[in-house]
Amino acid sequence: MHIDFYMKKLLKDNGEGKSVRMIDMIQKKKNGEVLTREEINFIVANYTKEEIPDYQMSAFLMAVYFKDMNRQETADLTMAMVNSGDRIDLSAIHGIKVDKHSTGGVGDKISLIVVPLAASVGIPVAKMSGRGLGHTGGTIDKLESIENFKTELTSSEFISNVNRYKMAIVGQSANLTPADKKLYALRDVTSTVDSIPLIASSIMSKKIASGADAIVLDVKVGSGAFMKSIGEARALADTMVDIGRSLNRKTIAVISNMNQPLGHEVGNANEIREAIEVLRGKGANDETTVALTIASYMTVLGGAFPDFDTAYQALEQIIQSGKAIDKFKELVSIQGGNPEMIDNPDKLPQAKHHIALKASQDGYIESIHAEQIGVAAMLLGAGRKTKGDIIDFSAGVTIAKKVGDRVGMNDTICILHTNQASHDEAKAAALKAFKIGPNKPEQMTYIYDVVQ
Amino acid sequence: MHIDFYMKKLLKDNGEGKSVRMIDMIQKKKNGEVLTREEINFIVANYTKEEIPDYQMSAFLMAVYFKDMNRQETADLTMAMVNSGDRIDLSAIHGIKVDKHSTGGVGDKISLIVVPLAASVGIPVAKMSGRGLGHTGGTIDKLESIENFKTELTSSEFISNVNRYKMAIVGQSANLTPADKKLYALRDVTSTVDSIPLIASSIMSKKIASGADAIVLDVKVGSGAFMKSIGEARALADTMVDIGRSLNRKTIAVISNMNQPLGHEVGNANEIREAIEVLRGKGANDETTVALTIASYMTVLGGAFPDFDTAYQALEQIIQSGKAIDKFKELVSIQGGNPEMIDNPDKLPQAKHHIALKASQDGYIESIHAEQIGVAAMLLGAGRKTKGDIIDFSAGVTIAKKVGDRVGMNDTICILHTNQASHDEAKAAALKAFKIGPNKPEQMTYIYDVVQ
Repeated sequence: MHIDFYMKKLLKDNGEGKSVRMIDMIQKKKNGEVLTREEINFIVANYTKEEIPDYQMSAFLMAVYFKDMNRQETADLTMAMVNSGDRIDLSAIHGIKVDKHSTGGVGDKISLIVVPLAASVGIPVAKMSGRGLGHTGGTIDKLESIENFKTELTSSEFISNVNRYKMAIVGQSANLTPADKKLYALRDVTSTVDSIPLIASSIMSKKIASGADAIVLDVKVGSGAFMKSIGEARALADTMVDIGRSLNRKTIAVISNMNQPLGHEVGNANEIREAIEVLRGKGANDETTVALTIASYMTVLGGAFPDFDTAYQALEQIIQSGKAIDKFKELVSIQGGNPEMIDNPDKLPQAKHHIALKASQDGYIESIHAEQIGVAAMLLGAGRKTKGDIIDFSAGVTIAKKVGDRVGMNDTICILHTNQASHDEAKAAALKAFKIGPNKPEQMTYIYDVVQ
Repeated sequence: MHIDFYMKKLLKDNGEGKSVRMIDMIQKKKNGEVLTREEINFIVANYTKEEIPDYQMSAFLMAVYFKDMNRQETADLTMAMVNSGDRIDLSAIHGIKVDKHSTGGVGDKISLIVVPLAASVGIPVAKMSGRGLGHTGGTIDKLESIENFKTELTSSEFISNVNRYKMAIVGQSANLTPADKKLYALRDVTSTVDSIPLIASSIMSKKIASGADAIVLDVKVGSGAFMKSIGEARALADTMVDIGRSLNRKTIAVISNMNQPLGHEVGNANEIREAIEVLRGKGANDETTVALTIASYMTVLGGAFPDFDTAYQALEQIIQSGKAIDKFKELVSIQGGNPEMIDNPDKLPQAKHHIALKASQDGYIESIHAEQIGVAAMLLGAGRKTKGDIIDFSAGVTIAKKVGDRVGMNDTICILHTNQASHDEAKAAALKAFKIGPNKPEQMTYIYDVVQ
């Protein structure tokens, strides 16, 4: 049967289904028009119910990529995704519930540090974290490298822990933002990930569905991040802060450097070890600075301090006093983990093989390609390639020399940890990451900007 | 399981399937890059085999809508679609096989006229036509309103008829351009129909797969056509003529007016009646002019005449001499139809009800919205809304007054033909189509331009 082009319009009248009205929504966005809240709700609700097929949604997403969404549309999309599933009710928790989110990087263990820090000054942090697909596990996976640490709590345990200890970290068990999950999976295979309103609404919908009153965003930029330029990162930060404003959630976005792995450790157990170091006041400069910055904004939003500088100094003091590491130990204890592992981090899982990689020349570390280090960590067993994969908590990479460090020929630049007998591919990836040159590079900026 | 944005690239490496490479193709087009022939073949071949899913293809199509395709890409896409299915081998037919195609309009019965006209001067026309979905049937449906007319011939009958009589019209039975069929169905529901390279390659692939050596395109523009402006129509015409040039098929595109229904009849049997009128030299001006123009270019491309003017005069003469209608009668006879119906068109199917609609005021017909007339015809039973619908050959609309005609109050402006007892909706649609005003409108141009 042959269909003339002219027939298109007539055919469209020939049906009453959701997919028919969806054509008009695609057309509208394709023409650069603004969608109403009702239209966005229609799209998200019916896509979630599978009454709008993937092939229409992906065409729509590509139209959004080209024609963008304005502030109101982006806020409406966020709330439509929030309303697509369960919402966590944190009203039984006293105080302003502050959450944080990172757009993702290599060696990003900030959550492990800021939760006890914020809690130590009385800010309630009811954290729901994810598992990871990628170079290492997510925060939940990392915590599970601590013996007996329980990442599943009942709803009442979760709330009572936060009320009593000001902190809890659990995996997402509820059916949060199913629309976002479906949309993200589709965007991932249709080259429609890199659209600011789609990224921003995805992130903010998860935070809002999780019950946050205030949100600090860590927007990472650089070779190890999704955002490659500060301009892009700022656009994303602006959009997310706008969404927060539209939806009455105080939101601050920190734009931070991800041009080398954060700190010295990439993996799971070894990232726990490094978080302990930072909480003891012995962390790497970059890791410590970014963690303190995020935690400071969290405590300001939570009302513990009047301004950033006061917060920052107070939190530094809390680290120096030993209260910060005690608070982390408390978190481990109340969630069933073995606190001895915090006192003695050598008891955390250890790999059988430790392979030191050496500098092939004298000079300075000019750059460390974070993504390549991530790939090495995954190859060593630290991450999941597919959902079913099992993480080796002991696997990972230790960055011995950071950007700007002086190295001599044959100095150890990084160490691979693994239980696998063969590790040539990981070795090649890690070596490829390091660039050594004759000149000392400029001091790196850890925090580029803050949007609030 | 939570997926960080950053993980996207790593995840992409996690698979070897066709859909993975398709992501890169989407990305490339999204970035405005030019695809190679190999890449286009990859996309079309694997989409046809269903190894690339619809949701990736629709994202790709939307990217093409925004970023276009250049001349080479469009020609490559055309050939990839040709190669996706069967190709009709017309090499056993002597001479230059000339085909024509219309982008579709209301009252478009040009094929019925030009096939016998071109054949009457010795041009071999091996026509494969479609059935229609829309306001009326397609050429094949219309021919089937002639008693016993056979629209299925064996391959050898088809070829021997064209060699002996220079003409045959059959339905498409072979598996021609399955990629185009799949793509068109997808475009139709994803608002990606209106892309010049996609329209042009769709049309040209069908003509080339059908074995044409030379092609005359009737690109219709106006209220009853897919192309609403002459600019758009010219862009489509240019692109199709370019494809023809790239693929060594002589191609000419005629840009014709579709701002009112063509001729006086819209339907099936009544369109056969009007084709007979034109072939007898008694047709409406617009219908006759467009048909003679298309037929003239066909005969020039086929080598029967040195230039358009000579061809046009010769074909006018053939109509006047009675040879044209004899040739049509011959077509009917050789394909098993009852030739008496051509001598006496009143024997063609007739509807039970004929409802004359009257002018509500004095004046001139200012415009007749062709699409509304099409809708009326479909409502009366002349077309298919869905594949399974049965066409009522006798149903349709007769346009009694055309644009520019003087009408008095209560003069009949059109007549509805139907076997249905209720026809209020069709009546409303038809009345809505006519606009009567006090001033005589300017004479309409039938042919806007010719691209060759």
